[in-house]
Amino acid sequence: MINVTVWNECRRQLDNPAVTGFYPQGIHQAVIDGIAAADLHLTAALLDDAECGLPQDLLNQTDVLVWWGHIAHHEVPDELVYRIRDRVWNGMGLVVLHSGHYSKIFQLLNGTSCRLHWREANEKERIWCIDPTHPVAEGLPETFTLKHEETYGEPFMIAPDGHTVFQSWFKGGETFRSGVALQRENGRIFYFQPGHESCPSLLDENVLKIIGNAVRWCAGSSKKPYPEMCIPKAFENDGV
Amino acid sequence: MINVTVWNECRRQLDNPAVTGFYPQGIHQAVIDGIAAADLHLTAALLDDAECGLPQDLLNQTDVLVWWGHIAHHEVPDELVYRIRDRVWNGMGLVVLHSGHYSKIFQLLNGTSCRLHWREANEKERIWCIDPTHPVAEGLPETFTLKHEETYGEPFMIAPDGHTVFQSWFKGGETFRSGVALQRENGRIFYFQPGHESCPSLLDENVLKIIGNAVRWCAGSSKKPYPEMCIPKAFENDGV
Amino acid sequence: MINVTVWNECRRQLDNPAVTGFYPQGIHQAVIDGIAAADLHLTAALLDDAECGLPQDLLNQTDVLVWWGHIAHHEVPDELVYRIRDRVWNGMGLVVLHSGHYSKIFQLLNGTSCRLHWREANEKERIWCIDPTHPVAEGLPETFTLKHEETYGEPFMIAPDGHTVFQSWFKGGETFRSGVALQRENGRIFYFQPGHESCPSLLDENVLKIIGNAVRWCAGSSKKPYPEMCIPKAFENDGV
Amino acid sequence: MINVTVWNECRRQLDNPAVTGFYPQGIHQAVIDGIAAADLHLTAALLDDAECGLPQDLLNQTDVLVWWGHIAHHEVPDELVYRIRDRVWNGMGLVVLHSGHYSKIFQLLNGTSCRLHWREANEKERIWCIDPTHPVAEGLPETFTLKHEETYGEPFMIAPDGHTVFQSWFKGGETFRSGVALQRENGRIFYFQPGHESCPSLLDENVLKIIGNAVRWCAGSSKKPYPEMCIPKAFENDGV
Repeated sequence: MINVTVWNECRRQLDNPAVTGFYPQGIHQAVIDGIAAADLHLTAALLDDAECGLPQDLLNQTDVLVWWGHIAHHEVPDELVYRIRDRVWNGMGLVVLHSGHYSKIFQLLNGTSCRLHWREANEKERIWCIDPTHPVAEGLPETFTLKHEETYGEPFMIAPDGHTVFQSWFKGGETFRSGVALQRENGRIFYFQPGHESCPSLLDENVLKIIGNAVRWCAGSSKKPYPEMCIPKAFENDGV
Repeated sequence: MINVTVWNECRRQLDNPAVTGFYPQGIHQAVIDGIAAADLHLTAALLDDAECGLPQDLLNQTDVLVWWGHIAHHEVPDELVYRIRDRVWNGMGLVVLHSGHYSKIFQLLNGTSCRLHWREANEKERIWCIDPTHPVAEGLPETFTLKHEETYGEPFMIAPDGHTVFQSWFKGGETFRSGVALQRENGRIFYFQPGHESCPSLLDENVLKIIGNAVRWCAGSSKKPYPEMCIPKAFENDGV
Repeated sequence: MINVTVWNECRRQLDNPAVTGFYPQGIHQAVIDGIAAADLHLTAALLDDAECGLPQDLLNQTDVLVWWGHIAHHEVPDELVYRIRDRVWNGMGLVVLHSGHYSKIFQLLNGTSCRLHWREANEKERIWCIDPTHPVAEGLPETFTLKHEETYGEPFMIAPDGHTVFQSWFKGGETFRSGVALQRENGRIFYFQPGHESCPSLLDENVLKIIGNAVRWCAGSSKKPYPEMCIPKAFENDGV
Repeated sequence: MINVTVWNECRRQLDNPAVTGFYPQGIHQAVIDGIAAADLHLTAALLDDAECGLPQDLLNQTDVLVWWGHIAHHEVPDELVYRIRDRVWNGMGLVVLHSGHYSKIFQLLNGTSCRLHWREANEKERIWCIDPTHPVAEGLPETFTLKHEETYGEPFMIAPDGHTVFQSWFKGGETFRSGVALQRENGRIFYFQPGHESCPSLLDENVLKIIGNAVRWCAGSSKKPYPEMCIPKAFENDGV
């Protein structure tokens, strides 16, 4: 059983017809409903909940954290972000969706700003799987489309060791590394581009399959603690 | 002319005979004297200087920042660390020495804790160049030794895209990726292991040549600003 | 002075109006004319020349080899391909254009088949620079277009350490890693996608600037020979 | 059930007391006996068998090929090596032991010579796990030793995307990336350094556990065939 916590800033969502048309109970609930399965224990966590939705107890029990944020990145306290980072280092998985690319936690794990080009124009997005051998690509077609998404474009300022699994084409002329796998210490991280609040991508069967795959792949990380850092005695007895 | 700022926490150095025996004017001065050259304009900056030694003006003028810290990492304010990170993203080089592996800025750029094994035992270190094609290896022998250094050992929890240029053997049985090149956005970063405060490594000819090479390699990074992020109009006129 | 040898299979080119309309003296001559500069000494070499155009003497004097092939990959003898590989290992640069992706030498250096999707449909290609810090991107705009090119699409089965500098969008829906830097031993390799025989891409100013940049970047590789492999005596005198 | 074929050149082994003391029935048999388990179906294949031990039928049925060669690399025909490469591209795993680093197949998959330093001096080797999160490291201690091995040293001229899982220290002063994971198309490859013919490493419990882990990790690769390369009709109907 994988404990998945779906975090959503949930600002301008429940009172915004452009969002509620697709996500009447918020983006978190759409993700929870969309990936529900026997092996996943799913919990919602919102920015306006106590302790920003992520008390240490919940973090400690979370195997994989799914992250959706957009206009309130700066409201997540640094102190919490560092505690999330610690959990990732110790093996908690992290799935970052759409505008979460600009969250503090994703920046912190990349070591970069994660800047990109963007345009809100409801353009068609065509997603290609460029590494069909990756577990997150399991069961997906070679290419599929979303009728309307926010356009994201290169250069995407992520860490160079991000491994591209999906790459997108947008009708307006952009191309983007839209599905990227990363590892930091024990923790596996997957970024996936679709999920704009006023587009129905998080109801799309292929998108949901990718998020579910990402959750399971991230859950498989190592939990081994780092051993004692100081080794006071040399292994080789003529060491000195 | 490359503007190099050599930052040193300079705690327990000038009043500690174990250190002043080798570095009577502090580690920063040893580095400045050791790499002095016609193409380098070298400035010292200390933690106890105003604004922790790094007012924004100086940061803005710095092409490459050399960093030595050990017991006072936590005294460097987060706010300053984020400003250094911004400068790296915009093309400032960063050369991190020895115990600087555990500085906030190096952790932030790796996205990892940079933990490692260690032992203070004055063991012999043998350094191997494992990528002789890298500019930082220019003019160095294939292998050289330091009679006494602090032992560092794997696993070294850095970002997986760190490119190993030097790899070390320690008499007590450890092996360590001791010279590692990294890039984050525009900025080039080089980590180099030797430089314990009570060992004379920063007076060693080969160590100083590597630091000088690293400074020049880091100085060669791109300074191009990221273009306007929002592209309101589609390039392809049938984009919508 | 960089010695550049531009190799072209030159089959079905000089007698084919679809090609001679753009390249009356063959693709090799277009490249030579297009990148001509004071620092480049340019020589043509053709498959039907003696020793397939690449006698060992010429190979030994070549700093950077530019490669264009398409329908005659199998006519390049394995023995020659291995000699080219040796030269790359020893520091000769290699710039592979367009359908050269399927040449024996590019496959050999990747360790992969370099398969891809393709379509001859004279579609518009839009090229994005996704790593503006790379020397091959110097002086190029963020994005530019080619009115007609052969469409290439992902998955592109190259080695995972290929570093993507340019990424392309094709009007028909494909996206492709179209400019990729690679290193094998001392040798630097750059692959660039445009250059179909019946499209005028090799007359395009931006394409030619990229090829010229790639030639100069590849020329900067190390020429250090590998040292003696056997080290009969242990460095550490208590080694046995 | 994983079909594992253990290939051994088996020259100067069965008639050489320095080898038969440890491996009376050859190195292949020691590996087969050492990793025998309920989930592995193990078959020996020798260079002097018909078709060099690897008729196409057997290759096609092999999930993971284990490779030990040393003095007869050149006797393996290129044609066979290319057939093995095809199988790797299509998802067959490959575990390369010790002097197999210099085999044609390992060179072909790296795109490099795989040169290294070496010394036959029966020195002590200490192996460190530097990525404890990798499946091949499962169940292994952080470090372990082999009393006598052939010394291998850096620089090891492999492809830069080789992911180091184990790193070795040798008493004579060398350090070496001794356990390296690689992927080429569908196929996973693992190189492991111990296994000199006159040393008992292939009887060592930790070495055998690593080889068994490597076999199982390599067996888990994707078997998806590359789809049709030509896409004659544009996906986007206004593509032309």
